[in-house]
Amino acid sequence: MAIPRHLTMQNPSKAQLRLWSRLDKVKTREETGLFLAEGFKVVQALLESRWDVQALLILEEKKDRWAAFCETLPVSLPLYGLTRKEWKGLTQDVSPEGILAVGITPPRLQLADLMAKGARGPLLLLHEINNPGNLGTLVRTALWFGFAGVVLSQGSVDPLNPKVIRAAMGSIFHVPFLFGADLSKVLPRVKENFHVVGSSVRTGTLPHACGEKTALLLGSESHGLPETLLKLTDEQWHIPRRGVGESLSLPQAAAILMYECVRSAPSRAARP
Amino acid sequence: MAIPRHLTMQNPSKAQLRLWSRLDKVKTREETGLFLAEGFKVVQALLESRWDVQALLILEEKKDRWAAFCETLPVSLPLYGLTRKEWKGLTQDVSPEGILAVGITPPRLQLADLMAKGARGPLLLLHEINNPGNLGTLVRTALWFGFAGVVLSQGSVDPLNPKVIRAAMGSIFHVPFLFGADLSKVLPRVKENFHVVGSSVRTGTLPHACGEKTALLLGSESHGLPETLLKLTDEQWHIPRRGVGESLSLPQAAAILMYECVRSAPSRAARP
Repeated sequence: MAIPRHLTMQNPSKAQLRLWSRLDKVKTREETGLFLAEGFKVVQALLESRWDVQALLILEEKKDRWAAFCETLPVSLPLYGLTRKEWKGLTQDVSPEGILAVGITPPRLQLADLMAKGARGPLLLLHEINNPGNLGTLVRTALWFGFAGVVLSQGSVDPLNPKVIRAAMGSIFHVPFLFGADLSKVLPRVKENFHVVGSSVRTGTLPHACGEKTALLLGSESHGLPETLLKLTDEQWHIPRRGVGESLSLPQAAAILMYECVRSAPSRAARP
Repeated sequence: MAIPRHLTMQNPSKAQLRLWSRLDKVKTREETGLFLAEGFKVVQALLESRWDVQALLILEEKKDRWAAFCETLPVSLPLYGLTRKEWKGLTQDVSPEGILAVGITPPRLQLADLMAKGARGPLLLLHEINNPGNLGTLVRTALWFGFAGVVLSQGSVDPLNPKVIRAAMGSIFHVPFLFGADLSKVLPRVKENFHVVGSSVRTGTLPHACGEKTALLLGSESHGLPETLLKLTDEQWHIPRRGVGESLSLPQAAAILMYECVRSAPSRAARP
């Protein structure tokens, strides 16, 4: 009879708890190359990705809920059981699911790698996206629409920020990502192989279907794109307002533009 | 010299404070016909609408911030100054702007009124939308795309719920609204004058431009539309997935579908 995996949980050391509790800070994530992924869907997406996982943490009072799941995991993955007090140091979630992974940040991609992947779908270029919820939602939408990669500029929120990971519902681990990019240098190189479309809140042509070698450039909800970057695009798209209101939210405008980017592309996923 | 309006603020009675503090409950809103609208943008949208306002509440410690604005208001509108403690009873906002309106719910519209307005744009029909943020965002998007009215089914969140009002950024007061509707009875009547399009997560045709006499029917993020309602539509639209992921979020899918609904329609708003 197999021994249920939840019986083999280890107790974390104080040093481990201290380290994990600091992973909400970008500085600690960069120094250690580790990050936290919370919640079942997110943990599952991480385990199904090519990213490595260092440990799985379970809230002891909820271990029965995760026992069956833990039995499906490789024995080489360390499982830790945490008390409610220890758990509180790692997350602000008021009603935690009780499952958390300590993930290992993969080696940074180079632009050339990402552009090579661009053969399989459009690229998404993001300028100074500071709202974690917005960034997470944008990545989730990009994955849904078959985008092949994301380039995130300097001055954006860290994509391994817990709020980004949560809003992205695990999609972060499945989209090739380049971050901390200087878009004024990246755009000219992307333009050599891609048709670069920028989103403009003021003027531009109506969005329209285009080939797969497209790169869609979006700015933040509050500031949009600076003129210096818009000037480097091949084309500017504008979603016309038909009624009244100040603006569409960024995730909604982005959904419309990404939908247009892949409009004529064949479906790459099996349909239900 | 005009006496600055912020000097003429009244102190609220205990009975007023008690009543206002209960306006977070749908029951109290229905019994009194009153609701709270918080934040400058929302208050401004309410004052610019055809809805009536019973009183304006100002957090005393922030009265200098609102003095100039208050001077632009009709003298007939009562202004109340509230202490921080009194304010806390009315809102959960951790860093309040310090401005709140007590609004008066307008008389309920009839379906016939709403359909008459449908000559000026499409209608949005919503089935069991329980997430306040989603409902608010849907209404804001509908206003942006020039929809002429919204029908909200029974079993949805109250559109005058403070979280809906906030997410809608004041658009609630500018879109004719019918709520508590039984869509199985409403749909056959709407179909007499409108082409009814339902959103389907499984099958259907690609979204496409259509005339103004269109009614777009959407379900909740978790459950979509029931078969009984989908059967009553003239057409079903499906946004195809091109990559991977479980689903688009409702506000994003809705933005794409509303955008398609008005795609060929002429712009009704002055362009910047």
